[in-house]
Amino acid sequence: MSYAQLEALGRKLEAVDHAIAILSADEATNMPVGGGEKRAEAVAHLAGLRHETFTAPEIADWLDAAKSEDLSAEQKLSLAEFERVYTNATCLPADFVREQTRTNMRSEQLWRDLRAKNDWAGFAPALESVVALAREEAAMRADKLGLAPYDAMMEQYDPGNRAAEIAPIFDQLKTFLVDFVPEALENQADLPLKPVTGPFAIEDQRALGLAMMAALGFDFTHGRLDVSHHPFCGGVPTDVRMTTRYRTDEFLTALMGILHETGHALYEQGLPRDLSHMPVGKARGMAIHESQSLFVEQQLARTEPFWHWALPHLQEHLGADALPGWMAQDVLARVNMVERGFIRVDADEVTYPLHIILRFEIEQDLISGALSVVDLPEVWDAKMEAYLGLKTIDNPADGPMQDVHWPAGAFGYFPSYTLGAMMAAQQWAAIEKAHPSLNDDIARGDFHAVNAWRSEHIWQQASRYSTPELLTRATGAPLDPQFFIAHLKKRYG
Amino acid sequence: MSYAQLEALGRKLEAVDHAIAILSADEATNMPVGGGEKRAEAVAHLAGLRHETFTAPEIADWLDAAKSEDLSAEQKLSLAEFERVYTNATCLPADFVREQTRTNMRSEQLWRDLRAKNDWAGFAPALESVVALAREEAAMRADKLGLAPYDAMMEQYDPGNRAAEIAPIFDQLKTFLVDFVPEALENQADLPLKPVTGPFAIEDQRALGLAMMAALGFDFTHGRLDVSHHPFCGGVPTDVRMTTRYRTDEFLTALMGILHETGHALYEQGLPRDLSHMPVGKARGMAIHESQSLFVEQQLARTEPFWHWALPHLQEHLGADALPGWMAQDVLARVNMVERGFIRVDADEVTYPLHIILRFEIEQDLISGALSVVDLPEVWDAKMEAYLGLKTIDNPADGPMQDVHWPAGAFGYFPSYTLGAMMAAQQWAAIEKAHPSLNDDIARGDFHAVNAWRSEHIWQQASRYSTPELLTRATGAPLDPQFFIAHLKKRYG
Ligand SMILES: [Zn+2]
Ligand SMILES: [Zn+2]
Repeated sequence: MSYAQLEALGRKLEAVDHAIAILSADEATNMPVGGGEKRAEAVAHLAGLRHETFTAPEIADWLDAAKSEDLSAEQKLSLAEFERVYTNATCLPADFVREQTRTNMRSEQLWRDLRAKNDWAGFAPALESVVALAREEAAMRADKLGLAPYDAMMEQYDPGNRAAEIAPIFDQLKTFLVDFVPEALENQADLPLKPVTGPFAIEDQRALGLAMMAALGFDFTHGRLDVSHHPFCGGVPTDVRMTTRYRTDEFLTALMGILHETGHALYEQGLPRDLSHMPVGKARGMAIHESQSLFVEQQLARTEPFWHWALPHLQEHLGADALPGWMAQDVLARVNMVERGFIRVDADEVTYPLHIILRFEIEQDLISGALSVVDLPEVWDAKMEAYLGLKTIDNPADGPMQDVHWPAGAFGYFPSYTLGAMMAAQQWAAIEKAHPSLNDDIARGDFHAVNAWRSEHIWQQASRYSTPELLTRATGAPLDPQFFIAHLKKRYG
Repeated sequence: MSYAQLEALGRKLEAVDHAIAILSADEATNMPVGGGEKRAEAVAHLAGLRHETFTAPEIADWLDAAKSEDLSAEQKLSLAEFERVYTNATCLPADFVREQTRTNMRSEQLWRDLRAKNDWAGFAPALESVVALAREEAAMRADKLGLAPYDAMMEQYDPGNRAAEIAPIFDQLKTFLVDFVPEALENQADLPLKPVTGPFAIEDQRALGLAMMAALGFDFTHGRLDVSHHPFCGGVPTDVRMTTRYRTDEFLTALMGILHETGHALYEQGLPRDLSHMPVGKARGMAIHESQSLFVEQQLARTEPFWHWALPHLQEHLGADALPGWMAQDVLARVNMVERGFIRVDADEVTYPLHIILRFEIEQDLISGALSVVDLPEVWDAKMEAYLGLKTIDNPADGPMQDVHWPAGAFGYFPSYTLGAMMAAQQWAAIEKAHPSLNDDIARGDFHAVNAWRSEHIWQQASRYSTPELLTRATGAPLDPQFFIAHLKKRYG
């Protein structure tokens, strides 16, 4: 039976993915520095092997044959998702992929060097090559998928994302934010900031993080918390590898990072176990994933009820002297600080979407050819000035050179971040409607209702539906920016 | 060029071996308990993949074709070792391997259960099946390799081991030990034992272990020390994963374990880097590996000069109060204690070889068919009584059921332990001859001479030569039990 052959194939791919995921987590958390070269070789070989396994010619036949087999409704969804993933994985010729991999890798390496030197002129030609190949890639994907080129690129990260639907939503949000950012800045102007008086011992911060993870529902029989230079949530659903990074003069950055990654981890741990080997059993995509991390970080944790519950734990683990006289509002004044800045990854939840919308607008024009790399700094500068009132023309390192995505050839990924933030707000609203006492629950550290709702409507749904369909099924309505706007108004208005 | 194809194949195998090694080390040191099932699936799949890759039919052609290519002397050695490994890996039919794997796995699982219950009668039928298949295996290996059946089994662990050469050596050693054990016991009778007064903090023990590892030459850019239930030395040469296990009431067990595993680690780290992907570049085998660990543990570390140097480090890390008034002899009185016991893994270096010789004698008869499983307890008991004066007939759990090797189907492995101990003594003698001031070096914590000699004569030789040839080339003479006997006489006589 062909469907059974697809299941066997899924198990093989799962094993290789398992190895790559654990090797990568180990590399970031445990590997001694001299192990890097052989580790890179091993992972590259496994990735090549995965590609070979997944692109074997008989798979297309299995997919076709399975369609006429007697499948349950569940299996039909699974088959459709298998075919979607297979098509995305095989729609580019092997020669093209090799050339593109080489080009993008060289560009990324050059970017690491030249960003540090703020050398746009030196980097631009490499980015030109990357963009040229990305245009070719988009055209080939579009052709194979029957989508517009930029949509075909987004399809890799969030199946169902369409620029025609996202653009008006982002426009509403942009219009709102351009006016709202100054208002939020003004509102916080006279909030008093309590000093953070360290040092905070790393063991204490770790114990606090573990306590928060456990309270939020992290399953320590299926995951752990380590330290790495860049925090991440990796591993596999049965063995989630989460990391953070501590500093001793300050603890809130690490803690908020832990809360964010816990959101990702709960999603992975909450996926349907018996489908873990099939594409339909995986996490839906980047936007939904980010909606789960931001749900915990922004919807749950940047709130008064949460800190009402969490503050005693903070004091228990960090010592009563560590936060003298702090109240929930004192934490919130720090973690919800709004600030206009150049750097996306440092941005707060109010200004962050403007960084994304700028990139969304620009990368569509890069892919369509309406914009050339050579004109990028000026376009970037003009938009930054219009949206955030900041000039970047003399500072490309903190302008169009700040992110790894484009130098590495990833176009169509950026929208997922802000789509995730909006989806998190919409999910919160849906849960609050179903459980009017939600904030009381949270003030008691009771996260059962939020987790039960998300388990049923998001985690257990895995990849049965496209990103927009999953959100619509979960919340009863398509993506609506008003939930996120209302959330910002309430918190910062 | 076929030799180049073998190199490419070697790199593929190295990548898969890398993944399996790191996944296994991670499993023992980091993996949360719920990750085990999927981890086992992933590793089993990678092992299957390795086997498929290595047994592809074209490899035999490459091996043949490479023989007529223009190869350097080094490449010829490499090719010969490649062929040897390939022949050993492919000499059993796939159906047989599947049946044997199933049988041995069931037997090992049953053994874990029934050993705890001391139930020999329940276990014997499973062991019968294992032995029956091992006899078939030995016959097939013998046929393919042109060796005697038991030699063909040993060949998997130590290429070149031949019972006809080992038996007279073991006989000399046995004859010596049967008389010498009572003498050693008598000699230690009036050695005073200083009390070990804990608790010893785990962080302190770890810092001490790391300091010892560094002094002995462990390269922390290519390895690390972790904790696991059963200590091991795993990973890959560029990323050696060593473990120990601590208790707080006592520190010597963990420390001696670290010293032993450091010996294994130095060997792996000292292998020729540019050959790591080829069979010729791997560690030679079990006996040579054990000779390297026992070299550090027994030849270097169970000595007065070593503790003359090490004792201040002990006191520095564990605190001056921890070992009040201890001298080198006080450590030696503890770590070199001789005791007759049932259990091989708990035995000291004087009695240990008798445990091995007993098994070596018995397993040859099991493989030849001269001994049936049903008669094993009586034969075991008779030999234990003759060699160590202990009765095991009523206690099979501590008799023939004590080790995992036979229940798991590993016959021909045991001799490697004692061959390693003898080789370590012979290597020590060779180094001492070349560096008469060796003990002075060690009393200063200077291990350059021993490491330089071992690097040149053992580590860098990797798998160029068979086990006996490697030892002969390194020390100038074939294995001679008198070095080990002299070592024991000097220490315990
Ligand atoms: Zn995230
Ligand atoms: Zn060992």
